[in-house]
Amino acid sequence: MKFRRSERLIDMTNYLLEHPRQLVSLTVFSERYKSAKSSISEDLAIIKETFEQRGIGTLQTVSGAAGGVKFQIKVTDEEARPFITELCEQIASPDRLLPGGYLYMTDILGDPSIVKRVGRLFASAFAETQIDVVMTVATKGISLAYAVASYLNVPVVIVRRDSKVTEGSTVSINYVSGSTKRIQTMLLSKRSLAEGSKVLIVDDFMKAGGTVNGMVSMLEEFKAHVAGIAVLVEAEKTEERLVDDYLSLVRLSDVDEKGKKIKVSEGNYFKK
Amino acid sequence: MKFRRSERLIDMTNYLLEHPRQLVSLTVFSERYKSAKSSISEDLAIIKETFEQRGIGTLQTVSGAAGGVKFQIKVTDEEARPFITELCEQIASPDRLLPGGYLYMTDILGDPSIVKRVGRLFASAFAETQIDVVMTVATKGISLAYAVASYLNVPVVIVRRDSKVTEGSTVSINYVSGSTKRIQTMLLSKRSLAEGSKVLIVDDFMKAGGTVNGMVSMLEEFKAHVAGIAVLVEAEKTEERLVDDYLSLVRLSDVDEKGKKIKVSEGNYFKK
Repeated sequence: MKFRRSERLIDMTNYLLEHPRQLVSLTVFSERYKSAKSSISEDLAIIKETFEQRGIGTLQTVSGAAGGVKFQIKVTDEEARPFITELCEQIASPDRLLPGGYLYMTDILGDPSIVKRVGRLFASAFAETQIDVVMTVATKGISLAYAVASYLNVPVVIVRRDSKVTEGSTVSINYVSGSTKRIQTMLLSKRSLAEGSKVLIVDDFMKAGGTVNGMVSMLEEFKAHVAGIAVLVEAEKTEERLVDDYLSLVRLSDVDEKGKKIKVSEGNYFKK
Repeated sequence: MKFRRSERLIDMTNYLLEHPRQLVSLTVFSERYKSAKSSISEDLAIIKETFEQRGIGTLQTVSGAAGGVKFQIKVTDEEARPFITELCEQIASPDRLLPGGYLYMTDILGDPSIVKRVGRLFASAFAETQIDVVMTVATKGISLAYAVASYLNVPVVIVRRDSKVTEGSTVSINYVSGSTKRIQTMLLSKRSLAEGSKVLIVDDFMKAGGTVNGMVSMLEEFKAHVAGIAVLVEAEKTEERLVDDYLSLVRLSDVDEKGKKIKVSEGNYFKK
């Protein structure tokens, strides 16, 4: 049975969205739809144009015997800007204020529609970077890490604060929390990260950067490399920032607990 | 500018996949593409046919003034069966055995391509059920919960074992672990779950069901209701199962630590 072009376009769109950053050979599609490669190439040209026009992503064509097509998330500024503005407004809501000047963000981190869009932005920002693994620390960053990883098509590894029998043997490090200056411990399962991996570190919140810095030290223990650092919210007022090169969507400039005011602005996303 | 049918099909496919279980009115599409509703209806008929034929999901049309179209994940048995078989093989690999007869599953739970497919299966199984929220307990079930929630288009709430300042005030309960009979504590942020919510409980592993049972008790505290229970792996050999009605993909029948053998079989997915 042959497939009509319309059916091919629908199914190929779904297939490409499900396999980001993966080189799909034209043969895969030509066998899947029992269609000539020339027809498949025409289909892909239409998909590429629409994906780019509608801000879905890019389609890169690799020619030659080992060639094929690769879909990559690419977020346009027209999508990113209103989303970041909306995020800022949500985060600035005074009822997020908790005792001690902390912010309640659990609802944002539990909302798949927000988390997916954050994941899209991070994946888009690191589209040209080689990344083998996304790393985060339990618990709050996990949904973000997982969303980014699914758009980058790489696994997630989760650093923990406590040891668990189901993790097998672990590597443990001590690190200094940047804001409280307390010594803390983090652990990572030995078999979860291969030597030489290029790792994107993702977290929901960065103050002085002690935790992120801890993850960087953890990577050294595994002879792995930092490919990038991405945080949803960074706090601006910190005496000493331990991490320099990172991406952030939202910047928390000031939290006035008494006056119940939270001041936020755009992070460095558009400056990167 | 008008849009050609091919462009509409590609963009609508992406749009529907991004908005599962959400009623999208034809007006949204007809404005988005500056096309007549009759053309949109024809497009949707083609998408519906292809989605159903290729096992992507179903498209439900609601007619009338408040009408529209709703995409829902629906996994065919032809997709589910080989995937569950593959999962069983992966889980039965002897190098997963940890001291004490525990299994290492961190790699599986960190692989987005697996996690997404588990999410598809769970979302498909509960396609006809009203679900407002997905709940899990930190840490290992989070990726699964998030995947299901994103296909069901509902938020995730995460029960924790320890209190954290960024959660605000919490409700805490004690529960008895089914297998070790030890008393444990779990907490949930007070504002994370609304009264009356219908909740799908998701976890990676269920032995006697103590933890799942704890989450059920937690729901009672919030005057919320269990809409369903889904676990990736259930252990068969348990003296007393605390939970009756659940869905599982894989059943762990026997772990022979000395002989380095893990016996697994299909869970109850196809019996549901």
